[in-house]
Amino acid sequence: MTKLEQIYEGKAKKVFRTDDPAYCVVEYKDDATAFNGLKKGTILGKGAVNNRMTNLLMQMLEQQGIPTHFVKELSDRETVVKRVEIVPLEVIVRNISAGHFAQNYGVEEGIVFDEPTIEFSYKNDALGDPLINSYHARALKLATGEEIDTIVRLAFQVNEALKAFFLSVGIRLVDFKLEFGRTGDGTIVLADEISPDTCRLWDKDTNEKLDKDRFRRDLGHVESAYQEVMRRLLEKQP
Amino acid sequence: MTKLEQIYEGKAKKVFRTDDPAYCVVEYKDDATAFNGLKKGTILGKGAVNNRMTNLLMQMLEQQGIPTHFVKELSDRETVVKRVEIVPLEVIVRNISAGHFAQNYGVEEGIVFDEPTIEFSYKNDALGDPLINSYHARALKLATGEEIDTIVRLAFQVNEALKAFFLSVGIRLVDFKLEFGRTGDGTIVLADEISPDTCRLWDKDTNEKLDKDRFRRDLGHVESAYQEVMRRLLEKQP
Repeated sequence: MTKLEQIYEGKAKKVFRTDDPAYCVVEYKDDATAFNGLKKGTILGKGAVNNRMTNLLMQMLEQQGIPTHFVKELSDRETVVKRVEIVPLEVIVRNISAGHFAQNYGVEEGIVFDEPTIEFSYKNDALGDPLINSYHARALKLATGEEIDTIVRLAFQVNEALKAFFLSVGIRLVDFKLEFGRTGDGTIVLADEISPDTCRLWDKDTNEKLDKDRFRRDLGHVESAYQEVMRRLLEKQP
Repeated sequence: MTKLEQIYEGKAKKVFRTDDPAYCVVEYKDDATAFNGLKKGTILGKGAVNNRMTNLLMQMLEQQGIPTHFVKELSDRETVVKRVEIVPLEVIVRNISAGHFAQNYGVEEGIVFDEPTIEFSYKNDALGDPLINSYHARALKLATGEEIDTIVRLAFQVNEALKAFFLSVGIRLVDFKLEFGRTGDGTIVLADEISPDTCRLWDKDTNEKLDKDRFRRDLGHVESAYQEVMRRLLEKQP
């Protein structure tokens, strides 16, 4: 398979066409943005951490029956993935209150929920990725009812698998964002990435933040937090 | 039953205690507010229209098996209702795109949905009544899962009943806001009001707005729109 021209550049990744229309190559960047692009910076080594971490976790999820876009790691920063049409919904699962949830609903961070929550944001930069519910998503024809049911089911399965995995390396999975795509035959698969950019990860014992909040909130030690998560995952890796 | 001291004053209504702890008296005001209280004004005669219209519609809904807080109309502006604990969720049902929906999701007004949508706002002025979904509402313990299921079922039933009724008087029910309450024994009943303050109502033939958007958007003929809706409902009334 040959990597051809770039077809898309996002905030943290580039996507390239290949000579097989069913596959793309994703390349992870060190660029970091926050607050819908208002804050910009670089986190050295982030691209390599996020690439390896995403691939490691997606392979673990595949083994648990969750279909993903992952195909093959090409290099430190490059991975072959199935070409999908991204469902324009950011899917956020929360186990513990933090971030927008705490801010929007006027509660402190750190409240452990009895059951995980799920929410959708409409992936639309011009509109500021507004919160949207499943009725609205169907009314706007962003996804069918059946697709939404599949996404909710898979997202909660992903949460159970990730929660257990992170806990085994001393990390609490606070919340995370997923994206899903439709393959050529319409199958819904997990796409995008799973990394400290897209997950809130707190050390189990100290509640130290090991994720992009260190960048968002200028907490320092950003690079070392990403490396620390990677180090723990690799130790666990057989 | 004796009307005693005021226990609550909202933007459009006052609530009074009575000598029976199971009942209150609601008094409708002519005060109008919009944009979370930023715009203030008076719509002459509104209190009387909203009182009579709410009572007429709630009685119609009761006949169709939907439990409400309505007990007895006392006067032009005063009604005895069951005393309830309001569930802090504004319940919005939409048949046609308009208002916040059109604005937030970047679509024009007037799109007729294949199926009605439902959404919740967290009733909290300090937070600006943010959109909230059923998972969040449960996580914040604003309502139980069972209560939310009941509210969704009743809200869609109310929609079908109101849509048919308004259509029979030449009005399209675009969207509306409901509130629900818990009676002493925990039963969920429809509370608050159903009026041009809480419904978007468009003339079936001309799409002329016959609701509070005339006030919100300075369209003029505010009072006459409220009176026109009332006139049509009373003509229909047996």
